[in-house]
Parts: sequence; structure tokens; C-alpha cells
Amino acid sequence: MPDLMTRKKSTTSQFLNPKQLPAVILELIQYNDNEYEMVNNLPIKELLEKLNPVLVNWINVDGLHDHTIIKALAKKFSLHSLLLDDITSDHQPKAEEYEEYYFFTLKMLYRIEFSKIEYEQISFVLGKDYLLSFQDKEGDLFNPFRDRIRQHQGKVRKQSADYLLYRLIDVIVDNYYVVLDAVGQQIEQIEDDIYTNPSEKEFYEIQRLKKELIYLRKALHPLRDALSKIIKDESGFIQPSTIRYFADVYDHVVHLIDSMDTYKDLTSSLMDIHINTLNTRMNEVIKVLTVISTIFIPLTFIVGIYGMNFNTCPKLATNTDTR
Amino acid sequence: MPDLMTRKKSTTSQFLNPKQLPAVILELIQYNDNEYEMVNNLPIKELLEKLNPVLVNWINVDGLHDHTIIKALAKKFSLHSLLLDDITSDHQPKAEEYEEYYFFTLKMLYRIEFSKIEYEQISFVLGKDYLLSFQDKEGDLFNPFRDRIRQHQGKVRKQSADYLLYRLIDVIVDNYYVVLDAVGQQIEQIEDDIYTNPSEKEFYEIQRLKKELIYLRKALHPLRDALSKIIKDESGFIQPSTIRYFADVYDHVVHLIDSMDTYKDLTSSLMDIHINTLNTRMNEVIKVLTVISTIFIPLTFIVGIYGMNFNTCPKLATNTDTR
Amino acid sequence: MPDLMTRKKSTTSQFLNPKQLPAVILELIQYNDNEYEMVNNLPIKELLEKLNPVLVNWINVDGLHDHTIIKALAKKFSLHSLLLDDITSDHQPKAEEYEEYYFFTLKMLYRIEFSKIEYEQISFVLGKDYLLSFQDKEGDLFNPFRDRIRQHQGKVRKQSADYLLYRLIDVIVDNYYVVLDAVGQQIEQIEDDIYTNPSEKEFYEIQRLKKELIYLRKALHPLRDALSKIIKDESGFIQPSTIRYFADVYDHVVHLIDSMDTYKDLTSSLMDIHINTLNTRMNEVIKVLTVISTIFIPLTFIVGIYGMNFNTCPKLATNTDTR
Amino acid sequence: MPDLMTRKKSTTSQFLNPKQLPAVILELIQYNDNEYEMVNNLPIKELLEKLNPVLVNWINVDGLHDHTIIKALAKKFSLHSLLLDDITSDHQPKAEEYEEYYFFTLKMLYRIEFSKIEYEQISFVLGKDYLLSFQDKEGDLFNPFRDRIRQHQGKVRKQSADYLLYRLIDVIVDNYYVVLDAVGQQIEQIEDDIYTNPSEKEFYEIQRLKKELIYLRKALHPLRDALSKIIKDESGFIQPSTIRYFADVYDHVVHLIDSMDTYKDLTSSLMDIHINTLNTRMNEVIKVLTVISTIFIPLTFIVGIYGMNFNTCPKLATNTDTR
Amino acid sequence: MPDLMTRKKSTTSQFLNPKQLPAVILELIQYNDNEYEMVNNLPIKELLEKLNPVLVNWINVDGLHDHTIIKALAKKFSLHSLLLDDITSDHQPKAEEYEEYYFFTLKMLYRIEFSKIEYEQISFVLGKDYLLSFQDKEGDLFNPFRDRIRQHQGKVRKQSADYLLYRLIDVIVDNYYVVLDAVGQQIEQIEDDIYTNPSEKEFYEIQRLKKELIYLRKALHPLRDALSKIIKDESGFIQPSTIRYFADVYDHVVHLIDSMDTYKDLTSSLMDIHINTLNTRMNEVIKVLTVISTIFIPLTFIVGIYGMNFNTCPKLATNTDTR
Repeated sequence: MPDLMTRKKSTTSQFLNPKQLPAVILELIQYNDNEYEMVNNLPIKELLEKLNPVLVNWINVDGLHDHTIIKALAKKFSLHSLLLDDITSDHQPKAEEYEEYYFFTLKMLYRIEFSKIEYEQISFVLGKDYLLSFQDKEGDLFNPFRDRIRQHQGKVRKQSADYLLYRLIDVIVDNYYVVLDAVGQQIEQIEDDIYTNPSEKEFYEIQRLKKELIYLRKALHPLRDALSKIIKDESGFIQPSTIRYFADVYDHVVHLIDSMDTYKDLTSSLMDIHINTLNTRMNEVIKVLTVISTIFIPLTFIVGIYGMNFNTCPKLATNTDTR
Repeated sequence: MPDLMTRKKSTTSQFLNPKQLPAVILELIQYNDNEYEMVNNLPIKELLEKLNPVLVNWINVDGLHDHTIIKALAKKFSLHSLLLDDITSDHQPKAEEYEEYYFFTLKMLYRIEFSKIEYEQISFVLGKDYLLSFQDKEGDLFNPFRDRIRQHQGKVRKQSADYLLYRLIDVIVDNYYVVLDAVGQQIEQIEDDIYTNPSEKEFYEIQRLKKELIYLRKALHPLRDALSKIIKDESGFIQPSTIRYFADVYDHVVHLIDSMDTYKDLTSSLMDIHINTLNTRMNEVIKVLTVISTIFIPLTFIVGIYGMNFNTCPKLATNTDTR
Repeated sequence: MPDLMTRKKSTTSQFLNPKQLPAVILELIQYNDNEYEMVNNLPIKELLEKLNPVLVNWINVDGLHDHTIIKALAKKFSLHSLLLDDITSDHQPKAEEYEEYYFFTLKMLYRIEFSKIEYEQISFVLGKDYLLSFQDKEGDLFNPFRDRIRQHQGKVRKQSADYLLYRLIDVIVDNYYVVLDAVGQQIEQIEDDIYTNPSEKEFYEIQRLKKELIYLRKALHPLRDALSKIIKDESGFIQPSTIRYFADVYDHVVHLIDSMDTYKDLTSSLMDIHINTLNTRMNEVIKVLTVISTIFIPLTFIVGIYGMNFNTCPKLATNTDTR
Repeated sequence: MPDLMTRKKSTTSQFLNPKQLPAVILELIQYNDNEYEMVNNLPIKELLEKLNPVLVNWINVDGLHDHTIIKALAKKFSLHSLLLDDITSDHQPKAEEYEEYYFFTLKMLYRIEFSKIEYEQISFVLGKDYLLSFQDKEGDLFNPFRDRIRQHQGKVRKQSADYLLYRLIDVIVDNYYVVLDAVGQQIEQIEDDIYTNPSEKEFYEIQRLKKELIYLRKALHPLRDALSKIIKDESGFIQPSTIRYFADVYDHVVHLIDSMDTYKDLTSSLMDIHINTLNTRMNEVIKVLTVISTIFIPLTFIVGIYGMNFNTCPKLATNTDTR
Repeated sequence: MPDLMTRKKSTTSQFLNPKQLPAVILELIQYNDNEYEMVNNLPIKELLEKLNPVLVNWINVDGLHDHTIIKALAKKFSLHSLLLDDITSDHQPKAEEYEEYYFFTLKMLYRIEFSKIEYEQISFVLGKDYLLSFQDKEGDLFNPFRDRIRQHQGKVRKQSADYLLYRLIDVIVDNYYVVLDAVGQQIEQIEDDIYTNPSEKEFYEIQRLKKELIYLRKALHPLRDALSKIIKDESGFIQPSTIRYFADVYDHVVHLIDSMDTYKDLTSSLMDIHINTLNTRMNEVIKVLTVISTIFIPLTFIVGIYGMNFNTCPKLATNTDTR
């Protein structure tokens, strides 16, 4: 939870022995309609020399703890100190225009198990002929898309860097659907259970889903605002023809928020059902108690009358003595 | 539920054997004030050749799984790839202007049984002299209106394609009233029941209606926004004289949302009544228990006193022995 | 309820035998500073011939089922087909500018009994020198005002048709105060009762008031929006000097909405009090049960000990036999 | 309550015998940097003759039932009929620009006892060189301020009539702080009580405070809007240098609304605590009941076994007879 | 609580014997890229003579009760009387442009103990070459930052006074994260406890956190508005290059509000869990009661039958006598 909530430097990158940290993965993909090259783990200096303004240059950095690399990139691309702060510390999704590039950061969602969601922050810096992407941990959702670039599928190789940014954001947003689908399925599952065989388990499941939706909202609402900012952008980093694609992603995020709100209402409804079930059961139990008591307590009294011993009753002792 | 919630390709159209799928129904209606022609199930190529810019050409496609047809249409009308995505996958209602046409998608509601609502997505592409409509399943609400065109009733034959779009949307929105009317009747029914003979059934009915209203809201709110976009449209695809008609549909949708909110408040109120009834009953039961216990438990005690045997009481055994 | 909720043609006017329907009442009031004439139930054709552009012509139609009349008016004043729809079917309050006139519709409230409110739709068409008013049923709130016109009281005779429209709307809105006052008095009454002698009756009264407020909101919120549209109107149908009067009505409606919201909060508060009273009582009852049980159940046990017969106890039978 | 809620003519001024009514108090204060004069209860005609455009003329009217006075003022200052309506009937706070003056009305709050708040409407008409103030009842909050004018304290004597209006409104708004402070103290008191010695009394206190806050909101929200209108005013009745002062009052009202919302949240929180305390207590009581019952009911049964008389049992009667 | 809630002069500074009050601490820090000087507790007159327009002059005042100092500063910098009011009395955060300076006030948060938050108001007046800061009590969060200035760390020495203001606000806002982090940790702690070992303590902890969040909202929402005003500022007191930094602080405050809302939802969720746990336990207890009663009350009755004495029963007395 604290990762999502508060803005602190990612502790791993600062206090651990750098030698124990996983090596930073540097990846450079360069392409245009005709050429394609991908190099991995070149030293940062050589990598920066390979940059070619004729091509689209996508530099992906996995791991933010190596300050040499971050500083080299910052120097090469004149990255603003506030931007570096936003990359290396936790930040809500946002889009920001700088003079020489466009900055975009959002949360990447993974569904670890059926019911566990993990968040990772990913930041993009979009220049005229390059795109930088920064993540803290290795592993992302882009491998199928990397293949598409290599194999020259779709129209990405014919487009410039802003289209590449759109495709990457689109991949991330599409994965939100997968996560939200799982939430929807769980709600349906709980609804079935709650009617057939209600128990405490369902209550805690609903609470867990509610919490998950609270975190999702925290990731989605600023994402919508950030995308809306891109759509209205007039900086020139996003070409007019690409704006329509971002508008499409924006639509998807609005749809996601709609679905999320619907799910929120559904979990509230499930809570009502749970509480009602609880109350109904309690009423049943109390009714049984009342029926039994109402029948047998008076009967016991009547029977007790017939069990009275007048001769042995202390108060009537004198009477019995005289008998 | 998942159909409504998430944006996935309609699986039927992609993974089933195309031969087992119902044939795609292609319908072309062409008219102006003097002429009228309707052809069914012409091969797509011949159909596209029949198009006549002098007439209003309405092409209706029932079934989205035949890629040949979709691609032919896309080529003929230069449909954008994002638009094709929106047609073939689930999408919330929206209106979008493209250079050569205007795109509109919304949900068509059917009331299957008294209390079951089905949603189907319908998409429209409006050009200068044509209107395309796309649905996934056969069957729609437009048959009475098709007759009106054929019989030259009303003024539709004198108007252009944008008025046709208005009429179709108006038919769909009018059907929302039917659905919402049914919801209103059910609320009244539940209210009657809850006062005269309350039971668990009413609670589940209220929950069902609440869920239905949640889904209706998901369909209606973006529809309002989409219509509001059309009203302010300046692209020229909608003529100024037709804008007033769309404003009227917009008014109806606002009215529907108002009614929906009212129904939502009424269901909440019903929930309160249900819970209060439950609590009151429980209080009654507990009161009975208390009255019975308060009367008979002390009486049983008093009666018990008279049932005491001092001579056989273990503690007093020595006393009785000495007697 | 369905009248208010859904947009359907008023069934009475369509399916009943016209001969059984009450006759449509046509009323024409013509005036300026010097002249005044009122005619009742002239045939529509003659009535329309009497119109005089020098005077303010107020035509009031009670009953919307005679299509001859509606059509004659529609032809004379070029009424738009959508406007006719809005007049004859149920519609939320709205203001709409047309080329040759201004359209305004709202709900007229009657308090039938102390606690029963009835809604009737009234529509106005304001032209340069005329005002049409349409109601479904006979009887309205305007009689005192009709007398004022005839007796040349106030300044209405010196003003044009837009001022007449303001006066009629003002009369209707003033009646909302009467209705809301009654709601306020009932809330006070319930509050008194709930503290002194709470019962189930209060709960159902609160629910009824809540429902009434839900319907009032449905009538008032769009009315505010419609009046706000009139205030900003620049069509010229409302003269600048009259705009201030409409602004005053607008203020009153805002005040009504404020009061309504306050009443809504007060009913919620009453609900809390009711629930608390219920719970407190239940606690009292359970406490009595507990006190009685805690005292007498152990006592009964003790007394039971003294009632034991060791000699007749089955288990101890052998002992007693040997005695 | 009805005073605050509904817009009706103050009945006192209309239906009572005017002779029984308290005399209307007319007060005229005239000043500039050098001169100062105050006259009381001059007949209206003479008073109006004393007006001097070189000075700031403040006419204060306590009592609105003398139509002669109101009419004389209305004639002298060309007061609009709608404005007169707003002065004499109950109205929510508002600011309105007229051609020759600026109109402002708000609620003056008095704290009668520790926990009782009274509302009185006060209306201002601000002209170039005069300020009219209208109240229904005698007595206001301005006496300390009247002394300051007389004694030439502060800078009011150097300023024009708009600054006088600001000072009067500021005095009224400052008194809201006193009232809200008392609410805050009561909330703290209740919070203390609810933890140490909770009872029904606290519940009714919370409800009373909630009601008070509902009424305060009704007075404060439109006041904020009215002040915001003044700040943006460009009519020239408020000088630019005075606008900053009104902005300050506006800030205070925003602060008051903030505090009010905070108090509302705190009362909700207190309600939760109260309900929780109630439930916890009930649980305690039921636990005692259960423990006692669980121990003694089985024991009573066991003891009952030992109290069985096999020889006298009706069913076993034949057995005992044969013994 | 009252400090935060109401706008009253800080009583300490007004009614206590000034001699008993802690001395006012006056601090002047002057710097540019080359020079640095800091003087403490110079008499106000000498201090003001030291001001040097070539340097950035930061005057920090701890203690607002010495009117000589406040008046001297007010005279030197032409501070507006309303601004002095805002400095010396409690005020919600705000930004306000004056002709010769820019005014900013906000709350500084301290976490006294793990779960106790203290608020202190701090006000800034930003001129072209100076920054005044006013606090009521000694001690602030700026010491590490004072060291950075002295040691010429970071770029503050190269920047002008507006950047200094940004840095100070940034320090204060960063401390909000610390406080909110603590709230987050407590929520997690409570969540753990509530599942493993729920008790009344958790309930009161949740209520305390809710109250804390209510106060935090009161400090954060107006702070966001004030910062948003600075970002859009065009007065020239904030240089365009510094605006970006304020935008960054604004982002942080938005993030804080987001987190705060999330925490609010989480505490609501915790409340639900608490209530559910309470209800479940009560159900368990009542079930035990019911099971015991249902088994033993009928058994006691049966056993009672066998304890009946027909010969000693009063009603049957005649029978036994005749035996």
C-alpha cells in the first residue's frame, strides 16, 4: 500500500548496496519503415552515441537505482530536475509539456494471481525522434508489441515516436480491461455464493474488492485527466493524426472508469445483500428462541404448580407440623 | 454482464467456424421523395455498385463476423481503423466526427420478458448521401419505421440521411421509455407488496431493480453526452434544421435520466421500508419473548419455592436424618 | 406516478370516445390599456378571426384531445410538430426558442387534500402579440389573476404578452410555496409526534414526504434550468424590462429548491431519530428481559436444588431401595 | 421554522391592528470626515428633506409594517416593486444591481441563549451617497459600530457609503463566527459526554446541532454567492478600493462554510459513535443474558431430574399403585 | 480544535502579560550567489536598515504578539490592514495579490507523537527582493534548509525570493507526506488488528483517524486552490521559470488530496468491517443462547412433569385428603 499512497523515493534504489541490486537493463530499439535494430545492455555512453535522428529511437530503462545512467540520460536529453524526481519517486499519472520533450507517467497493472493486482509506475519522455521509458523493475507488457515492430506488423514502423508512445499506453490500458474483467468475474462469483451459501468469507471478499476498486480509481482518474491534456495538446510533440488515437485511449479510460463505478455500485449492493442475509438469519434464530420459550416456559410453570409440596414448604411448615 | 462491462471483441464472430455462424444479413434501402427500392442479401460487391448519390442509401448490416463485408465497406467508405474497432467491440455510446462521415454508437434495449432487459450495440456511420448501420444480431426495432418509408408516410422520404439517423435513434430512445415504464410498474408493485405482505422476495426484487438501474445509467449517461455533442456539431453532416430534432431526442434522454434517478431514489426508499419492516418485526418477536419470560420466569421461581423438599435436600440432609 | 415519470400521450385524449370526453374549453382574453374583451367557447375558426395584433391576445385551451382545435392553432401560429408533441405528451419543464415564438412548459401543482399533491402540465407559446396556454384538464390557478386583468388592477394591462407570461408563471410558482409550506408543517408535526409518541405511522409519513420531495425535485430542477435559459434569452420575445421579473421568479425557484433540500435533510434526520427510538426501545425491552432472567433463572436453579428428591431419582434408585 | 423556509409576507405587518404594532423606528445618520449628525424618529417627510448629497446618509428602518414610510422611501429613491417585495417578505441572501442603486439582503444571526439561534432578515439599498437598511424588528448588532462613527474611530468617516455597507456586513458576518464557535463548543462537550457517560440526551443534542447546521447552510451558501457577485461587480456602486474589503468578507464566509462542513462531518462522526455505543451496550447486555442462561438453564434441568417423583407421576401412576 | 475552526485573534498574544510572553524572535537571512549573512534578534529598526535590495532578504518573525514589530514591518513594507488581520488571526490557506507584494498563508503540520498532529499557521509576504514569514510559535521545519542556504547547496543561492518561497512551501508540503504516511500506517495497523483481535479500541482509533482526515481536508483543499491561483498568476512576483516549481507543489497537493480521499474510503471500509464483526459476534452469542434454550427449556419441562406431586397439589387437595 505505501508505494501507491505516498511519494517517497523507491527505497531499494537508495539504501541497498548497489552491487546487490539487479543490474539495470538498458534496451535500445531503433527503426523506421526500412531499418530495424535492437541492442541490449550497451554501456550508456555507447548507447547514446548510437542514436540516429533518422530513426525512431526507443530507449527503455528497467531499474532506476543507477544514477550514472539516469544522469547521462538527463544530460543528453536536458531532462528537468523536477521530471527526474517524478520518474524516480512515486507519482500519480500525469502529462506535462516541457520545452524539448513531452513527459507522461502512469501506472502499469499486473494481475499476479487471480485476485492480486500489482502496480508499477512507468514514465515516458517523448522527444521529436526518441522515446524514453523508465520502469523500476524488469519485465513489462510490451514483448508482443516488440515482436510486432521487429516483424514489421501493423503500421508502427511507418509512424513516428508519438505513435509509438500511443501504442505503449494502449497496451497498458488494454491490460486494465483484463484486470477489471477479473474484478467483474469475482463480483459475479460472490453474488452467486451470497445467494446460495452465504458466509463471512464473502464479506471479506467484498471488502477486498472495494479496496481494489479504491486503488484502481486512484490510478484511473488522474490517467483520464492526463490523457485529456494530451488530446488538447498543441505543443507539436503529438502530431494531429496521432491525437485521434490518444482520443481513443481516452475513450477507453472513460469506459474503464464507468465500469469501475458500476462495479463499485455492485459491491455496495452486495454489501446490502450480505447485511440483509445476516439480519434475516438472526431474525430466524430469535424466532426459534421465542417460539420455544413461549411454548415451554409457561408449560414449565404450570407443571411446576403440580410439583409444589405444601407440607414441605418452609412458610407453611407450621401447617404441615400440625398435621 | 461481461458484454456490457468490458471491451472485448465479440467472441462469436472470431472463434466460431464461420460456416456455423448465421449468415450476415445485408439490406439496402434507397429512397427519395419519388423513388424507393429495397434489396436484401445482395453480395456486397453488387450492393456497393447499386449506391446512388441522388438517393438516400441506407445499408444495414446484421452480423459483424464476416470480415469480407466489413472490409469492403471500410474500403468503399474509407472507414478509419479505430472506427472499425468501435463497431466490432463493445463500446459505450459516443458521437465522433471524422473527415468524411459522422460516427454514432449506442445501446439498443429490448425487454425480453417482463423483468429482463437485453442490450445490443448498434453503430451508425453517416455520410452525405448514405447511412450505414451495424448490429451484431439479427432483429431490430425498425420494422414499423421501414414500413413508413416504403409507404411514404411522414416526411422522412423528403429529408436527407441525417434525418434518417435521427428517426432511427428516436425509435431506439422511445424504447427506453417502454423499458423504464416497466421498471416503474415493478417499483409500484413492490411498494404495494412491501406494505401488505413483506417477504424476502421483495428484497431481492429491489436489488434486481437497483442492478438494472445501474446498467441503464451506464447506457444513458454517455448517450446524453454523445447527443449533446451532435447538437453542438458544426461539421455539416447534420443539417441545422435536423439539429432541432436531435435536441428533442437529447431532451428525452435527459428526461429518462431524471426518471431513472427518481426510480433510484424510490428503490432506496423501498430498501429503508424493507429494513424498517424487518426491524419492527424483530422487535415484536423480542417483545413477545420478553413478556412471556417476564411473567412466567418469576412465577416459575415462586412455584419452585413451593416445590422445595427440605427433608431431601442434600445440604439439609443431617437435619432430616435427625428427625 | 406513471404520468409524471414517462412520456406517453395522454391516453384519455386518444382512445376514449370523443363524445364522452369533456368538451374542450376555449377562452380568449384580449386587452390593452384601454380595451378588454373576453370570449368563451367560440368555435376555433371564429376565435382565430377575432385576433387583433393591437391587443394582447391570450388563448387558453383546456383539453388537448380535440385534434381539430390543435391543428387549427398549429396552422395559424405555425407551431412546430415537436412542440405539439411536447404539449400533448408529458414533458419535464423546459424553455425553447423557435423562430416565430417562444415555448415554455412546466408543472402546475395543486394540493388536493392536506397531504396530497397533484401535478398538471401547462404549456405556453409566446408570440409577439399573443400567448397560447395549453392544459389537459379544466381548472387552473389563474382566476384571481383574470379578475385583475378585467378590473385593470396592477400594471398588466399596460404591458405586453411577455409580462402576461411572467405573471402566469409567477402564480404557478407561488403555489409551490403553498405546497412546500404544507410539507414543512407536516415535518414539524411528525417531529413533535416522534418525540412524544413514536409509532410506525410516523415512519410511513416520513417515507411519504420523502417520496413527495423526490417528485417535487423532478419538477423544480428542470424548471430552474428553463427559467435560467429565459433570463439569458436574446431572442427578443422577452423584453429586457421583463427579464428582471423572470429573474425574480428564478430566484424564487432557487429558494424553493433550497427549502426542498433543507426539508430533505430534515426528513433524513427524522429517519435517524425514528431508527434510534426503535433501537433504544428494543434495548429497553432486552434489558428488562435480561434483568428478569439474570435474577430469576439462578434463583429457580437454587430453589430447584431444594426440590430434589434423592430417594425417587432414577439414578439413585438403588440407594433408596436399600434404605 | 416557517419564517426561514417559506416566502410569505411577515404576517405581523399585515393583519395586526397597526396601532398595536410597535412604532416604526426611523434613524438617520449623516457624516463625512468633518461633520456628523444623527436624528431619530423624525417624520419620514422631514427626514427625507434633511438628506445631503455631500454627506454619507444612512437611513435605518426598524419595522416594515408602516406602508407610508416604505412608500415614501420607495418614491424618493425610485425603489423597484420587486425590491420592495424582497425587503418585506422572507428571502434568501442575494445581491442585485439596479440602475440607480445596489440591493443586498442577508440574514442577521443572534444567539439568544447558549444553544438557540435566531435569524432576522436585513436588507440594504446602496446608492451613490446613501445607504438604506431595513429590518423587521428593533435591535441590531450595529451599536458599537454607531459609536465608532460618532467618535470618528477607524477610517469609516473618510470613506463613502459602499465602505459603510462593507462594515455593516462585516459586523453581521463576524457574529456568525460567534454562533459557529458555540456550535463547536457544544460538539466538543457532546464528544466528551458521549465517551464518559453516554445517554439519550446526547443523541437529541446531536440532532439539534445537525438541524442548526442545516439552517446555517441555508443562510451561508447564498450569502457566499451574493458576495461573489459583489466582488465581480462592475456597476460602479462599489469602488474598486472597497472591493478588496468585500473580498475579505467573502473569504470569511468561505471559511465559515468550511468550518460548517467540518462540524457537519463531526456530528456525523458523533452519530456513529453514539450508535456504536448503543450497539456495544446491547451486546454486553445480551452476553450477560447468554452467560446466565447458558450456565443455569442446563443446571436447572439437571436439578429438575433429581426433583422427579416417579411414584406420583400421572403416567407412572399404575406402577406406583401396584407397589 | 477551536484554533483551527474559528477565526479569532490568537488569545495568547492579546490577553497575557507581554512580559510573560516568550520574546519575539526576529531573524534576517540575506544572500545571493556570492554573499551570505544571517543575523538574529536585532532590534526591528536596525534590522530594517540592514535590508539590501541587491540580496534576497528573508525576515522570519516567530511570535505575533509584539505590535511594535508588526507595525514597523507594516510601515516599511506598506502591509495592508486586511493582510495584517490575516496574519495575526486564524485563516484558511490562501494566496492573494497586492500591488507591492504577494501574500500567501498556509498551515504547517507537525507530528508531535505518533498519532498527534499539530497545526500552525505560517504566512508569507513576497516582494521583489524580500520575503517575510510570520509564525506564532518558535520552531519550524526550515532548519535543514537554512543550512543548505548557508552552505550554498542546491541552486537556491542563485535564485530570487520567489524561489525561496517555493522551497519553504515545498518543505511544508513534504511534511504533509510524513503525516499522511503515519495515517496510512495506522490504517494498516488497525486493519490487521480488526481481523485478528477486534475490540472497541479499534473503533475509537478509526474515529480518531476520521477526525484527523477531516482536519487535514480543511487544510489541504484551500491550499490546492491557493497554489492553483499562484500558478495562473500574472502579477510578475513569481517568475515564469519558478511557476513550474509551484506547479510541482500543486501536483503534490493534488496527490495528497487523492491519498487523503483514499484513506477516507479505507476508514469507511474499516468501519463496515468493525460493524460487521460486531454483528457477527452478536449473532454467535444469540445462537448459543438459542441452542441452549432450545435444548434445555423443553427438557426442563419434561423433567418438570415427572416432578409433579398430584397429592400435594392445592387444586387436587380434596383428592389427597380422601385418600
